[in-house]
Amino acid sequence: MINTLYLPELREMLAENNEAELREFCTALHPARTAEFMEGLNADEIWRVLQYADPAVRDEIFGFFPENKQVEILETQDRHEVAGLLAEMASDDRVDLLDETDEAVVQELLPLLPADERRDILRLRSYPEDSAGAVMTTDFAKLGESLTVREALAELGRQAENLETLYYLYVVDDTDHLRGVVSARQLVSAMTRPDTRLSELMETDVAAVDVLDDQELVASKVARYDLLAIPVVDDEHRVLGIVTHDDVIDVMREEAVEDAHRIAGVAPLEESYMRTSILTLTWKRGMWLTILFFTALSTAFALQHYEKNFETYTWLVLFIPLVISSGGNSGNQTATLVITALATGDLHLRDWVRVVRRELVMGMLLGGFLGMCGFIAALIVAGGWFSSTVVAVTLVLVVISGTLAGSLLPLFFKRVGLDPALMSNPFVAGIVDILGIVIYMNVALLLLSLTGQSLKPGG
Amino acid sequence: MINTLYLPELREMLAENNEAELREFCTALHPARTAEFMEGLNADEIWRVLQYADPAVRDEIFGFFPENKQVEILETQDRHEVAGLLAEMASDDRVDLLDETDEAVVQELLPLLPADERRDILRLRSYPEDSAGAVMTTDFAKLGESLTVREALAELGRQAENLETLYYLYVVDDTDHLRGVVSARQLVSAMTRPDTRLSELMETDVAAVDVLDDQELVASKVARYDLLAIPVVDDEHRVLGIVTHDDVIDVMREEAVEDAHRIAGVAPLEESYMRTSILTLTWKRGMWLTILFFTALSTAFALQHYEKNFETYTWLVLFIPLVISSGGNSGNQTATLVITALATGDLHLRDWVRVVRRELVMGMLLGGFLGMCGFIAALIVAGGWFSSTVVAVTLVLVVISGTLAGSLLPLFFKRVGLDPALMSNPFVAGIVDILGIVIYMNVALLLLSLTGQSLKPGG
Repeated sequence: MINTLYLPELREMLAENNEAELREFCTALHPARTAEFMEGLNADEIWRVLQYADPAVRDEIFGFFPENKQVEILETQDRHEVAGLLAEMASDDRVDLLDETDEAVVQELLPLLPADERRDILRLRSYPEDSAGAVMTTDFAKLGESLTVREALAELGRQAENLETLYYLYVVDDTDHLRGVVSARQLVSAMTRPDTRLSELMETDVAAVDVLDDQELVASKVARYDLLAIPVVDDEHRVLGIVTHDDVIDVMREEAVEDAHRIAGVAPLEESYMRTSILTLTWKRGMWLTILFFTALSTAFALQHYEKNFETYTWLVLFIPLVISSGGNSGNQTATLVITALATGDLHLRDWVRVVRRELVMGMLLGGFLGMCGFIAALIVAGGWFSSTVVAVTLVLVVISGTLAGSLLPLFFKRVGLDPALMSNPFVAGIVDILGIVIYMNVALLLLSLTGQSLKPGG
Repeated sequence: MINTLYLPELREMLAENNEAELREFCTALHPARTAEFMEGLNADEIWRVLQYADPAVRDEIFGFFPENKQVEILETQDRHEVAGLLAEMASDDRVDLLDETDEAVVQELLPLLPADERRDILRLRSYPEDSAGAVMTTDFAKLGESLTVREALAELGRQAENLETLYYLYVVDDTDHLRGVVSARQLVSAMTRPDTRLSELMETDVAAVDVLDDQELVASKVARYDLLAIPVVDDEHRVLGIVTHDDVIDVMREEAVEDAHRIAGVAPLEESYMRTSILTLTWKRGMWLTILFFTALSTAFALQHYEKNFETYTWLVLFIPLVISSGGNSGNQTATLVITALATGDLHLRDWVRVVRRELVMGMLLGGFLGMCGFIAALIVAGGWFSSTVVAVTLVLVVISGTLAGSLLPLFFKRVGLDPALMSNPFVAGIVDILGIVIYMNVALLLLSLTGQSLKPGG
């Protein structure tokens, strides 16, 4: 949300080059709020204001601007000044930002950075997107296992300014292999015994992730062990960096939104809805809409098979949408419940028999109730016992098909290694649509033949 | 997932009362993993093993068991021993657990707790469910503003054992009003100037939440400001507790799953899918299925209006499901995109004109494409230029209706203060179903009258 309240004042201060007030503005508030108040300014104005901020705070304020604004500033402002800012930024945020920036600008900026920062950037950029390596930061507290509590505190006092976080201190041997972890709390508690060695204090059973692990796995591990940060190691268990809680929250948000979009049949967006162009959105939706269109088209062929009967029994037509949507809705409910339970780890593949049994029972209960509603509704709309019976029996069977398809398909996709969120709902919808038509027509056919009338299959 | 690997060994150790090995088992691993290895044991066995754990670690291991196991232990084991465990637990976890426990047991346990812990529990239990007060912990570092860095460190050394967290130190005046915050990092960096007062060191612009704020707001503030914890204050800005990052991750997971369920028309579950009983699930799904059933039923009345025409033009029937599902799918896509964008703060109410304009354009593009597909498909299925034209024109209009209803309804629900996730998709589905039928029949009617034929409205 753009806060326009202070924009006139800020512009006035800039016009007057009012150093005292601009410094005050950059210092008084939480950096997130400072950034909020400036969001209505253009890139040039923001950059001018930021020159009045303390270097230690400048990169923090900058970090709270929306990404597109950050990119704009990087691409338009003085390369040397921008490189100075980049050198201050947290290593993971910096790389994310450069990934969004015009590659020509990045190539101009890199030589202006100190050699070690440049190497760090190049290394982080080499990890695959969405891997632990791509979201980790290399600014973390690493201490030798032979240090005493006193030495560790002194060392931290020196390092603290450059670290993003200081809640876990990772203890390593001479060749950077992860040996254990000491929390800031443990270190402070141990100040009364300043000669204790870290190796005596540390916990040795440390949860860690591999640098190539998927970010979703990283997030679920951090959540499961209630961690503030998790170390990222290579295949020889050397610490390369850490992924911190704020990145985990971002990952979880991203994944939750992506899952919701997938369930609705929208291919995952790279950017937020409002920032994605209409053409990209149309493409990402169009793919799935077209697939869904052709599954729905199969209902036309199914109906064609029974076409002649609609001349005689026009009441059959009235309930086609009702039958299809009841099956679709119950299938959609089940598929979403199963997909989210699989995603949160509440449900495992080996529970499949239990799930299917539960869904069968629920299908019968829900179908039975909707069948009753349908019986009464058909009596009112079509006005005959016969049509009411057909509709009621159909609804029971269709709702059961919905719950069964909705539970079996996600489990099947998971089993064969496909993403259940991506594949399930369109297929459930398609299968249940066809099943709905086939069940409806065959129930009608059967009951008509029992009462001595006949439908005409095969048109 | 229940790990059965070590169960035989654990049972053997218990049978032998092998103190040395049981102690080792409780100490060697991360508490989360210790709990994992024990999950297959029954409540009695778990409790016996836990007696060998160091008191400081016991409550941590206990905290990693699934909630139903924790409740079972509380309800079945010795009240005095259980009360001892409760006294050690983090105040927020403890209250969550007691909320799930049989109230008679809770009433027996409370008198066995130390007076201050009991008061703390009663106070936290008095806050409404899902409020900041209900998720906060009261174990946090609070320091007077007149303390020096040296005094603060000494004070923390004393308090650290009892604190859940130690990354932020909240600075208060004599009457507990929140004045500022100092991070553990800042304090450690300031060790070289041990006589600096906290009031000089602290940041005064502190993001805080009110004790009655909804947990979703708390989570979004923590995520927005990249915090590890946020203080919870009363209406006079006195600090009552803090909400920490791990609770925020839990809240975000919960809310993401709930939103996915709501979008699929399942009322939010109190427990996970596998732990919710079939009857509860049937009820939570049945409510919405019934509402959706009656919206879908209105299509039967709409179709009845045109019933006579199906005798003459049976091909009209073939495309009913296709028309309805194309509108429903595009509406569902738009509604989900808009709902998630509203939830993540990417989209604001005042942007509504832009959203509707974008969706109109997308509706025309997607509808145009599906219309073309429909034209060809109808040529193949029904085999006539006339029916193809009717289907194509209908699809264009229906997809546009879907995108418009899918964008306008969530924005409208948000505007009048209802939860867009809860209300939108069922209503979008209902409206688009009816619109689909009405558009389809009227396009046919219009084109027939243009070609000199006529449908029979009002059958």
